[in-house]
Amino acid sequence: MHIDDELLLNTRADEEADDGLSLPYSDRGLAYGHGIFESMLYSNGVIALEDLHLDRLMIGAKCLGIEVNRSKVALSLNTFLVDLAHSESASCVIKLILTAGSGGRGYKNPDVMTPRLIITHTSLPTDLAEQKSLGIKLWRCNSQLSTNPQLAGIKHLNRLEQVLARNEPHRPDCNDGLMFDYSGCLIETTSANVFMKTGSDVWVTPSILMTGVAGVMRSILVDTLFPSLNLALEVKTIQEIELAEISEIFVCNSIRGLLPVTGVASRDDVMANYPIGRTTKDLQAMLGTLYSCFL
Amino acid sequence: MHIDDELLLNTRADEEADDGLSLPYSDRGLAYGHGIFESMLYSNGVIALEDLHLDRLMIGAKCLGIEVNRSKVALSLNTFLVDLAHSESASCVIKLILTAGSGGRGYKNPDVMTPRLIITHTSLPTDLAEQKSLGIKLWRCNSQLSTNPQLAGIKHLNRLEQVLARNEPHRPDCNDGLMFDYSGCLIETTSANVFMKTGSDVWVTPSILMTGVAGVMRSILVDTLFPSLNLALEVKTIQEIELAEISEIFVCNSIRGLLPVTGVASRDDVMANYPIGRTTKDLQAMLGTLYSCFL
Repeated sequence: MHIDDELLLNTRADEEADDGLSLPYSDRGLAYGHGIFESMLYSNGVIALEDLHLDRLMIGAKCLGIEVNRSKVALSLNTFLVDLAHSESASCVIKLILTAGSGGRGYKNPDVMTPRLIITHTSLPTDLAEQKSLGIKLWRCNSQLSTNPQLAGIKHLNRLEQVLARNEPHRPDCNDGLMFDYSGCLIETTSANVFMKTGSDVWVTPSILMTGVAGVMRSILVDTLFPSLNLALEVKTIQEIELAEISEIFVCNSIRGLLPVTGVASRDDVMANYPIGRTTKDLQAMLGTLYSCFL
Repeated sequence: MHIDDELLLNTRADEEADDGLSLPYSDRGLAYGHGIFESMLYSNGVIALEDLHLDRLMIGAKCLGIEVNRSKVALSLNTFLVDLAHSESASCVIKLILTAGSGGRGYKNPDVMTPRLIITHTSLPTDLAEQKSLGIKLWRCNSQLSTNPQLAGIKHLNRLEQVLARNEPHRPDCNDGLMFDYSGCLIETTSANVFMKTGSDVWVTPSILMTGVAGVMRSILVDTLFPSLNLALEVKTIQEIELAEISEIFVCNSIRGLLPVTGVASRDDVMANYPIGRTTKDLQAMLGTLYSCFL
């Protein structure tokens, strides 16, 4: 991502004047990560799963004490889309950052908070189609996820654990890494939620009540796709040892949709390979039926 | 803190052109909190404990994969101080933020990282002298500190836990709050380290190996002030229940120096009061002897 490749917009949620293309140093998003973000797929004039993204944004804002009007955020996003429709981008990633704005003394919030909304767009990853059809391989991250039920689920700007994990040395054939909490439970990858079928022949996905991100695509899978195929799914605590019994596994997020996982490396970099399973293909197809942008 | 009250400088550590007074949206400090900061006391032309601040900054940078030359950071700081000497500020707080700069795809670092250094200054807190002589009172925060030994000690930009704690409802006579980890151990306040004498008549301060900030003033106390007064100090795990046995307690940071604590509220807001003890006064005096700016 380079700044000069992007169309940038800085919309204050209170509809004050546009700040230009950059952020005051005093912004609490920079100082403390006091804010949340959403990365959304834009395709053919619309944002996929926009309502779910805005739901999560509002939940995160409430958790962090950022008062913002949902309809004003939606309006800013629509204004951005109008501009985007005039550019050549048929599809791209739209990133929305909502911060607590400037002010306050140290960690203490300002008496009157003026949130700051930043909307940018970047090109789609170039390896998307290949990853959807051929799958990806995962390593096991040494960097771990700390437990904080107060912050679990929301997509806040405190992402150092993901940064450390993503930049670990890893097998060159791996595209992402599995992350575990400090009790050794599987939570997610650095940028996706994970679903797998293990020995018991039941599909499972990690509980994210204590840490992890409540992915928008994860909720589509849990609430819509698994039920639509009459597939049982258990949301549960998953110990690392259970990975030995994987028979089918995939990851998902709201940009890449559903990606088959064809290999998971061990802690000493030995790869366990998996075929792309029937259920993974069925779920991918059902997702494409509901949202063609994820085909 | 308001942006227009500040003298701002944005110095790229690679000595590229100044970016002006604001930050590109693509900065990884904003996106992920991928950076560290130092808040330093400027007084009579010098920065108190500058070497210790730069030591911690370099340790943090290394931990976060940010390659930066210490002497370039020191040079930027000196340039800032020259400008500051021409202004009317005899003493103020200087804040230095070092981020991983722009670039990368998602959490993945850019192939070539160009760190960004931001130096700003703000006025000193107005209640400083009063707090040093009369002491402060503390509440017990409900927001907790998560455990991450990889990030413990360094002053990184992921500070949501402190933000949540600092903005909790609390007794109006309290100035800061004690923070505990998820196993109920005392770690620090939202913005200071803590030292106390308990039933066993021994001074103790919490271990910060698993979470918490390695305060610059904390290290002065541990390494210099306690030894200089021939006082035993134990760095250890401290359970919340041990607070019942406090006979003397103070907090410290590199802006406020050493502040006596004259009261700690219980979970149900009942205040336990403490006199300002002899040792606290002796340590304050010794600190003032070594560094007159903390008098």
